[in-house]
Amino acid sequence: MKNAKISNAVINRLPRYRRYLIELQKKGVEKISSKEFSNLIGYTASQIRQDLNNFGGFGQQGYGYSVKGLCDEINAILGLDQEYRMVLLGAGNLGQAIYKYTKTFKRGFKVCGWFEVKKDLIGTSSEGMEILDYEGLVSFVEKEKIDIGIICTDRESAQEAADRLCFAGVKGIWNFARVDIEVPPHVALEVVHLSDSLHALAYHMNDIKKKEAKEAETREHRIDKRQK
Amino acid sequence: MKNAKISNAVINRLPRYRRYLIELQKKGVEKISSKEFSNLIGYTASQIRQDLNNFGGFGQQGYGYSVKGLCDEINAILGLDQEYRMVLLGAGNLGQAIYKYTKTFKRGFKVCGWFEVKKDLIGTSSEGMEILDYEGLVSFVEKEKIDIGIICTDRESAQEAADRLCFAGVKGIWNFARVDIEVPPHVALEVVHLSDSLHALAYHMNDIKKKEAKEAETREHRIDKRQK
Repeated sequence: MKNAKISNAVINRLPRYRRYLIELQKKGVEKISSKEFSNLIGYTASQIRQDLNNFGGFGQQGYGYSVKGLCDEINAILGLDQEYRMVLLGAGNLGQAIYKYTKTFKRGFKVCGWFEVKKDLIGTSSEGMEILDYEGLVSFVEKEKIDIGIICTDRESAQEAADRLCFAGVKGIWNFARVDIEVPPHVALEVVHLSDSLHALAYHMNDIKKKEAKEAETREHRIDKRQK
Repeated sequence: MKNAKISNAVINRLPRYRRYLIELQKKGVEKISSKEFSNLIGYTASQIRQDLNNFGGFGQQGYGYSVKGLCDEINAILGLDQEYRMVLLGAGNLGQAIYKYTKTFKRGFKVCGWFEVKKDLIGTSSEGMEILDYEGLVSFVEKEKIDIGIICTDRESAQEAADRLCFAGVKGIWNFARVDIEVPPHVALEVVHLSDSLHALAYHMNDIKKKEAKEAETREHRIDKRQK
C-alpha cells in the first residue's frame, strides 16, 4: 500500500465502491472489468483505476477485478475488518433517531453505552437500552475500551461532550449536533449535517421549478408571437 | 439573481453559511465583514465573496454583510421561505430513525404521511403517527399536495418506491435507502448514505493509527541507534 496522502474525495468514494461490490457478490458475480464497473457505478473507468491505484491497484490486465478480492481490500483499507465500540451522547429526538439508526448495522459498529446529561432521562430505557449518567462517561469509555463517540447533544453541549470524549480516549467522533466542533489532531472527526442535505434538496426543487417556469414563459412568448 | 448554473459545491456550502448566520443573529450580531465571516466559518474571504457573487452578491464595500439580510437571502435562494409537505416510506428501523429525526425540525418540513408495504405494520402507530398502507400512496400524495418523498425502504423496494412517488407528482426525493436510485429530470434527488460517513470515519481513525505507529517506530529506531 502506498503511503502518500490520499484525498478525502477518494476516501469518500470507497464506501460506494464497497456497496456495489457487496451487491455484485450477492448476485454471484466473481470478476468485473473497470469498464463494466464504470457502467454500473457511474464513475469513468479511468477514475476507478486512478482511485484504486492510490492503494496499490488490484486489477489484473485483461482479467479485471476480483469482486471478492477488491471488496476485502476495501474493507481492509477502510478498517472494516474489525469491530468498533461506540458510545452515544444525547437521548433527545436526535439521539433516539441515531440510536435507532445504529440498530440497522448488521456488524462492525456497536453502541455499548448511551449517555445523557438531563437528570429526568437518566436511568430510563429507550429501545431496550438504559440511558446512563453523563458523569460516568470518562470511566465508561476507559473501562469499556470505546473507540468512537457519537455526539447527538444540543448545540450548546456538543463541544464540551467532544472534549470529554477525547480526554477519555476515543479515537473518532461522529458528530450529528448542529454545530461545528473541534478535536485534537490524533482524533478523527466525521460530521453529518442531515438538514444541510434537506436544504440542498429544497434548492434543487426550486431550481427545477424556476427553469420550468422560464421554459413555459418562452413557449407562451412564442405562441403570442405566432398569433400576432 | 444570476441565471448561470451554480455548482453543487456552492449550493452545499449555503446551508453552512446559513447555520452560522443564524447563530450570529442569536448573539445579536448585525453585520459582519467577509474577513470576520471567514475567520468564523473557515472558508477564505475570497471564497465567501465568490460563493455569494453567484447569487448577485449582497455585501457592501466597507460595510460587510448584513447578517439578517444575508440570512434572508440564503433562505430565499434555498427555498426555505416556504413550507414543504413530505411523506415517509418505510417503517422499519431506518424509517423510524428518520421519522424521529424529522421531529427535530422546528418548521419548514413536515411529515404528513408515513407508509409501509408490510401488512403487519400497517395500521399500527409509531411516535404517535399511524402507519398507512403503501397502496394508498399515490392518491395521498395527490390529495395532500405532497412535495417531498423520503425513502427509507429496504434496497429491493427503493426504486419502485421512487417510481411511484414520481408518478404521484412529488418534486423531490430524499433517499436514505442503501441503494442508488434514478428519478426523472424534473424531480430533484438528494441521497444520504450515513454508513458511508461512518466508514470514512473508520478509515481516518486507522490512518491516524498507522501514522502514529510509524512515528513510534522512527523514534525507537533513533533510540536504538543512539544506544549502539
